[in-house]
Amino acid sequence: MSRWEPDARGRLERAALELYSERGFEQTTAAQIAERAGLSERTFFRHYADKREVLFGGARLLEQTFVETLAAVPEAVAPMDAMGVTLEVVAEVFADRYEPARQRQAVIAANAELRERELIKLASLSSALASTFRGRGVEDTAARLAGEAGVAVFKVGFERWMGDGGRGLGEHLGEALVELRRLVVAGSA
Amino acid sequence: MSRWEPDARGRLERAALELYSERGFEQTTAAQIAERAGLSERTFFRHYADKREVLFGGARLLEQTFVETLAAVPEAVAPMDAMGVTLEVVAEVFADRYEPARQRQAVIAANAELRERELIKLASLSSALASTFRGRGVEDTAARLAGEAGVAVFKVGFERWMGDGGRGLGEHLGEALVELRRLVVAGSA
Repeated sequence: MSRWEPDARGRLERAALELYSERGFEQTTAAQIAERAGLSERTFFRHYADKREVLFGGARLLEQTFVETLAAVPEAVAPMDAMGVTLEVVAEVFADRYEPARQRQAVIAANAELRERELIKLASLSSALASTFRGRGVEDTAARLAGEAGVAVFKVGFERWMGDGGRGLGEHLGEALVELRRLVVAGSA
Repeated sequence: MSRWEPDARGRLERAALELYSERGFEQTTAAQIAERAGLSERTFFRHYADKREVLFGGARLLEQTFVETLAAVPEAVAPMDAMGVTLEVVAEVFADRYEPARQRQAVIAANAELRERELIKLASLSSALASTFRGRGVEDTAARLAGEAGVAVFKVGFERWMGDGGRGLGEHLGEALVELRRLVVAGSA
């Protein structure tokens, strides 16, 4: 096998998601993933530190996209409007990724340890967003709440997308943000 | 030692929090906690399944208080107003509990496994609130967002209380809710 395989990372991810779906995350080994992808185990470990990283390797890029996009929105834009712009850009990361996202979600839902890892990922994202809001001059309490609200909209919009892939993630995120606004304004605000 | 010790549970909790603070959670054993409390190890295990339950044994009561209070608010009350009422009642659970809450928070902050457990606790609370909102006739997406928003306000308000025990938890939670409303309304809502 040659050292440089075309789209080795993508082939490994697809093979891993197939195997995790078929036999479960616990029951799958790196060697089996490599075999299914028609690649060597060494190639697997050149691309992923372990089989969990196939599921969470994108978390850093996701957080980076959130933080860099939010930081680039002019400071005059109100926090939740800036979050709305950010969510639109983040949605593009998932364009043409509906099927792997859906498989990944099902694998995570079936495994307690992976669900915990996903919670940690989202908590880290919330902290990173709060920190970015503070950098935009938002006061500490509001910055934390904006980080939490941004993650809540992402999480709920993402779940809606999983249940309805006929429309894009961006639409679902936009609707969840509108829904949060309606909800929070209702009553004796 | 007699089978029924006055306030054994409280004494064990205080002893555990002291020891976790002094030597770390990992380094403390159930036997040491019992000894510090002047009780037997058997008494410890009559009150707590393990040393982690000293920190998380209250989670079920907390969730129950949230859910039962929210369910009892008349359905005509808007979701976030109902959440506001609920947070006031929940705050009473923590009356005179500032010092143990602060110690607990510090112990959890110092240990990755405990931080994960705390995230799981809050995720479970969010699901329970969403389910209660659905039971109040709130549509699914709004119910999930209301659950997430409620937990966000609780989390951020609680952190503020930890940093300023001069005022009660209820005041901090109320202010965090007002802050969330201000934040979410600001801009092109």
